[in-house]
Amino acid sequence: MSETCVQLVDGATRIYGIIGDPIAQAKSPTVFNEKFRDMGKNAAMVPLHAKPASFDGCVRGLKSLANFDGLLITLPFKTSIVPHIDNILPAAKRIGAINAVRRESDGTWSGDMFDGKGFVAGLRVSGLDPRGRSIMLIGAGGAGSAIADALAEAGASTIAIFDCGAGKAKGLAARIVKSHAGCCAVVRPPTIEAMDVLINATPVGMAPGDGLPADFGPFNDKLFVADIVPRSDATPLIALARSSGCRTMEGKAMVTGQVDAILRFFGLV
Amino acid sequence: MSETCVQLVDGATRIYGIIGDPIAQAKSPTVFNEKFRDMGKNAAMVPLHAKPASFDGCVRGLKSLANFDGLLITLPFKTSIVPHIDNILPAAKRIGAINAVRRESDGTWSGDMFDGKGFVAGLRVSGLDPRGRSIMLIGAGGAGSAIADALAEAGASTIAIFDCGAGKAKGLAARIVKSHAGCCAVVRPPTIEAMDVLINATPVGMAPGDGLPADFGPFNDKLFVADIVPRSDATPLIALARSSGCRTMEGKAMVTGQVDAILRFFGLV
Repeated sequence: MSETCVQLVDGATRIYGIIGDPIAQAKSPTVFNEKFRDMGKNAAMVPLHAKPASFDGCVRGLKSLANFDGLLITLPFKTSIVPHIDNILPAAKRIGAINAVRRESDGTWSGDMFDGKGFVAGLRVSGLDPRGRSIMLIGAGGAGSAIADALAEAGASTIAIFDCGAGKAKGLAARIVKSHAGCCAVVRPPTIEAMDVLINATPVGMAPGDGLPADFGPFNDKLFVADIVPRSDATPLIALARSSGCRTMEGKAMVTGQVDAILRFFGLV
Repeated sequence: MSETCVQLVDGATRIYGIIGDPIAQAKSPTVFNEKFRDMGKNAAMVPLHAKPASFDGCVRGLKSLANFDGLLITLPFKTSIVPHIDNILPAAKRIGAINAVRRESDGTWSGDMFDGKGFVAGLRVSGLDPRGRSIMLIGAGGAGSAIADALAEAGASTIAIFDCGAGKAKGLAARIVKSHAGCCAVVRPPTIEAMDVLINATPVGMAPGDGLPADFGPFNDKLFVADIVPRSDATPLIALARSSGCRTMEGKAMVTGQVDAILRFFGLV
C-alpha cells in the first residue's frame, strides 16, 4: 500500500478492474493507479476477486456497467475469459488466452494477450533484442506459450522448448512452427549449448527452498538469462547467472514491460 | 475531484460500490473515500453505472466477488435491489426500499434504508429534535416515504402530508398510521398553520428557474424549514426561510447525516 498524493475516486471516475483468484497479491492496481495519477486521468483500477464458479456472471455484470472500460485477467481466468470477448486480437487468438480486454466505442469488447509482448519489451529494456537469437525456453504452460509466441513474432531464429510434460512442449513447438514459419521451434532437454538466451517460464524459484529449474552448472558469460518468477530478491537461477557474469532479466520486468502496451490498448496514451 | 493525500487502491483494497443511473454526479464516492482515508482503511468506494436492463445481472456479479463488501443504491434502483437481499432490516421493510447493503460473515446480504435516518440525523445536527413536533411534509415519493417513516420513528406527533398525487399522500399516511400508532399522519393541503417544521421532499428547487414547492408567503420565524434538494446555493424555499428569520436545513445535511450510520452498518466504525 503506497501512501502518496492522488485524486480520490469520485462519481465520475472511469473504472478498470483486474480479476483473479486470489487477487490481494496483484501488483497491477498499484502500478496502473500510479500511472493514472501521473497522467492526471480520473480513472481507477480495482481488484476483483472472482471465484471460478461465479466468474462468468461477474464478467457479464462488469461488461454491462456503462462506466467500466477495461479489465485485466490473471490466474486462473486467462482462458475462461475468451468466450466473453467479441474481437480476439491476433496474439490472443494464437495463444488461446487473453489478459486484457477493452470496451470499444460500438459497445463490443476486444481482447489481447500481453504477457509475451511484455516479456519481449522487458528483454529489450534489459538490452537484448531476440531477433536472430537461439533461445532455450523452460516451461510450456500459459506463460511459456505466450513468451514463445512473442519471441517468434519478434524474429527469434530458434526456440528450444523443455517441459516436464513432454506433450505440452511438443504441442507448443508445433503451434509455433505452424504460426511462424521462419522460426525453428523444437523440443529439447534443458541445455545451454549453442544458446544465446535461457528463459525460465516455470514457477520454480517462487517458493522458499526452490532450486534451479534444471540441472545447470556455471554459465558462459555470453548467455543472457531471464526468469519470469517475480521475487523481490534474486531467484536461484538469477543468482547463478549473476555469479557467472551473465546479463539477466527478472520477473518484474515482464510485468512492467506490459504496462505501456496495455495503456495504449486501453486508449489512455 | 479532490486532490489530496491518500492511499492508492492496491490488490488488497476492499471494494464498496454505489450503483445508479446516472452516477457521475454522485457525491458518495468522494465522501466515503475521504472517510476511508481519514480512518486509515484500505477500502475504496467506486461508482457503478448500471442500466436498468442489466441491473439484476450487475448485482448478482457484484455479490459474487469475494472482496466486495457493500453497496449503496441510488436512483432509480432503490426498490429494484430488494429481491436480491436476504435480510431486509426494519426501516427498509416498512418503506419497501433499500439504499445500502452489506455482506454478512455467513455470506448472506442485509439491506437497510438510511435516507430517512440521515434526514433525521441532519435535523438533529441542525438543532431540531423531531420528537413531539408537528411537521408538514411536501412530497410522498421515495424520499418523502423514508423521511416520514424516520420522523415517526423519532417520535414526531403529527405528520401532515401533501403530494400532487393525492393517492400517494393517502397511501403514505395510511402506512405511517399502521406502523406507528402514536403518530398522527394525515393528508393535508400545503400549509404551515400550527406546524413546527416544513419539509420539502420533492425535486422542486433543483432546476434553475424553479420556484417554491407550494404557494407560501413569508414564514413565522418559529418555523423550522428543511429542503432535501442538494444545491450548493440556497433553493428558493431555503432563501425565503432565511429571509423570514427561520432556522433551516439544506439537502446536503441529509447526505452527510447518513455517512456515519452507513459506516457503522458496514462494520467500519
